[in-house]
Amino acid sequence: MVISKESHSPIYKDEIPTPALLLDLDVFERNLDKMADFLNQKRGDFRPHAKTHKCPTIAKKQLERGAKGICVAKLSEAEVMIAAGIEEILITSEIVSKPKIGQFIALTQKCPSLLVAVDHPQAVRDFMEAAESTNVKLNVVIDIDGGNHRAGCLPGRPVVDLADLIARSNWLKLRGIQCYAGHVAHTVGFEARKKSSQEALERALESKALIEKYGCPIEIVTGGSTGSYNIDSEIQGFTELQAGSYIFMDLDYRRIGSDHDKLFLDFEFALTVVTTVISRSHSNLATVDGGYKAFATDKPFTPELKNITGVNFRWAGDEHGILELKEPSQEIKLGDRLEFLTPHCDPTVNLYDRLYAVRADRVEDIWPIAARGKSQ
Amino acid sequence: MVISKESHSPIYKDEIPTPALLLDLDVFERNLDKMADFLNQKRGDFRPHAKTHKCPTIAKKQLERGAKGICVAKLSEAEVMIAAGIEEILITSEIVSKPKIGQFIALTQKCPSLLVAVDHPQAVRDFMEAAESTNVKLNVVIDIDGGNHRAGCLPGRPVVDLADLIARSNWLKLRGIQCYAGHVAHTVGFEARKKSSQEALERALESKALIEKYGCPIEIVTGGSTGSYNIDSEIQGFTELQAGSYIFMDLDYRRIGSDHDKLFLDFEFALTVVTTVISRSHSNLATVDGGYKAFATDKPFTPELKNITGVNFRWAGDEHGILELKEPSQEIKLGDRLEFLTPHCDPTVNLYDRLYAVRADRVEDIWPIAARGKSQ
Repeated sequence: MVISKESHSPIYKDEIPTPALLLDLDVFERNLDKMADFLNQKRGDFRPHAKTHKCPTIAKKQLERGAKGICVAKLSEAEVMIAAGIEEILITSEIVSKPKIGQFIALTQKCPSLLVAVDHPQAVRDFMEAAESTNVKLNVVIDIDGGNHRAGCLPGRPVVDLADLIARSNWLKLRGIQCYAGHVAHTVGFEARKKSSQEALERALESKALIEKYGCPIEIVTGGSTGSYNIDSEIQGFTELQAGSYIFMDLDYRRIGSDHDKLFLDFEFALTVVTTVISRSHSNLATVDGGYKAFATDKPFTPELKNITGVNFRWAGDEHGILELKEPSQEIKLGDRLEFLTPHCDPTVNLYDRLYAVRADRVEDIWPIAARGKSQ
Repeated sequence: MVISKESHSPIYKDEIPTPALLLDLDVFERNLDKMADFLNQKRGDFRPHAKTHKCPTIAKKQLERGAKGICVAKLSEAEVMIAAGIEEILITSEIVSKPKIGQFIALTQKCPSLLVAVDHPQAVRDFMEAAESTNVKLNVVIDIDGGNHRAGCLPGRPVVDLADLIARSNWLKLRGIQCYAGHVAHTVGFEARKKSSQEALERALESKALIEKYGCPIEIVTGGSTGSYNIDSEIQGFTELQAGSYIFMDLDYRRIGSDHDKLFLDFEFALTVVTTVISRSHSNLATVDGGYKAFATDKPFTPELKNITGVNFRWAGDEHGILELKEPSQEIKLGDRLEFLTPHCDPTVNLYDRLYAVRADRVEDIWPIAARGKSQ
């Protein structure tokens, strides 16, 4: 690796050892600005999901542009973000074990506005007991099942009972409700997605009305995604958007379509994985140094070359990908550095320790993905 | 997380924060011993592939049991293993960029027996030039395409030309040939796998004979996998086995079948991912805190509960899995800790920073996965 004598870091994009995660700063900043401006116009709050980037540097850029706070998926991600000085944080996944509830309390002592999603009376009672015994007031949102049955309380009686249990405690403060329907984010076709998102949020808003009827005001209604950013923000009563992927974009989002195009191109591809051609023994094949350990593989399609057409990527194990050279729009030689759009950005980012922030051919900065691997 | 006051580490298995990677030490040691004993009887050399575990602690246990060295897939993995004091290392993937060739030379200065696979005259010339200019002698093996066209030189004329190029250099020492046919390892059915592996190694042994005919002795013929351990070791002229997964086992290997059973159970499941049930709002569903970031997803099947039947695991995003409770052999409650067999061990291990080494209900040790993420 060619390194600068001062910083021991690559100066030019072409010096970065592959495979590596690249962020095109010009594009990334346009994505950041576009979403911030959009929500500002709609007068909607923004709480971007940091599970996408796991990077405090990026979280701070989102906050600088007006985000009211951030979401994280896990307690251990919250720990990293709080250590980096970030204060307004919602943990969007349920926490149920007593040791983790203890950790949540310790984090609340550092960061009193910390929020967590709850969906079950047993966990709520454990939170209440732990809060009382440590004398720390805790903030929660009730998670509502948006219809995909992944997590969340069922609307109707169960949600009212849960709100009632929380309201009777002096130690828990019910700040709002969360409704994230994972199936909505990637529904293909704008109208189908709109219908699906409206149905999910309807469940949340009915629950809000029910809880408020019993005398408990609901300040926050949080949820949504990059795929529903311009749907949810139109819904009366919805208060904050949790979109994450808009900063990077990926192939899975591109295919969902927008309100004016078959492809969803409202945000641009800022993230790529750069690889090197390390084997070139066949006229119609080239092998790159990135496989299952360089790209997330949870989607039924493969990485796509950024600037070259006529080439298919085929998985070839942990460390390799094979390029089938159908009608390549440029020659592909041994040693070539090739950039790929990723099928799914979040779990791809989770494979890397750092993000190379690039402007044109220069490495402007290297950002630690400080919460990489923090899935606890 | 309940921690011991001295070590800040969990003492009991049930205190480990989830999701986490567990290693059942009793089973792991049986796997280590079984392969060591088998190859000892066959008088075959063993160079286990450390891309599976990325853990110097485990590499040392393999060396203590008679392995002649280890394989790694990447230069950055070799760096970690050399820093941990391991000396006999083969880098099984091609290196082609000049900066990485420079790093290889720096590592060879620390570890003079370091080996790397080469498959192309252009790269060989770059190695020769760099070796001469730094006055460092380098060791290489020629990688032969075993038939899956992922990497490797074509048998026949190309391999002889490459051997000749190497032989004419004073700076490169040709130590042997490598033939790893990825498609063989997971061929289902013992007889089909045997045929497939024999065909691949035949290409390698023909190449060996050709090179030796031109006056260049070939000391090492390296390759093979867990799936072909008792096939390749029977082949005259094959000198060392590169098996990796045998220490952990995974669902992908179980399905390939053995010489006496429809399932391949020659080695036992030592590796699991432990998760917690964090949502339980539906009678027939339970949600655990492990998804795409807790398990590798490159196989067309999902994780499987270790000790419970009648339950299907369904992917539910980056952080969650949904359990469909068909006819569960035991009750599944909120907060339950559940262990899963993994679809594919290598890329799953690459998601974690540490391996909890467990004996019965106790955490005996925590081993850093020091080369986690070292895909460069």
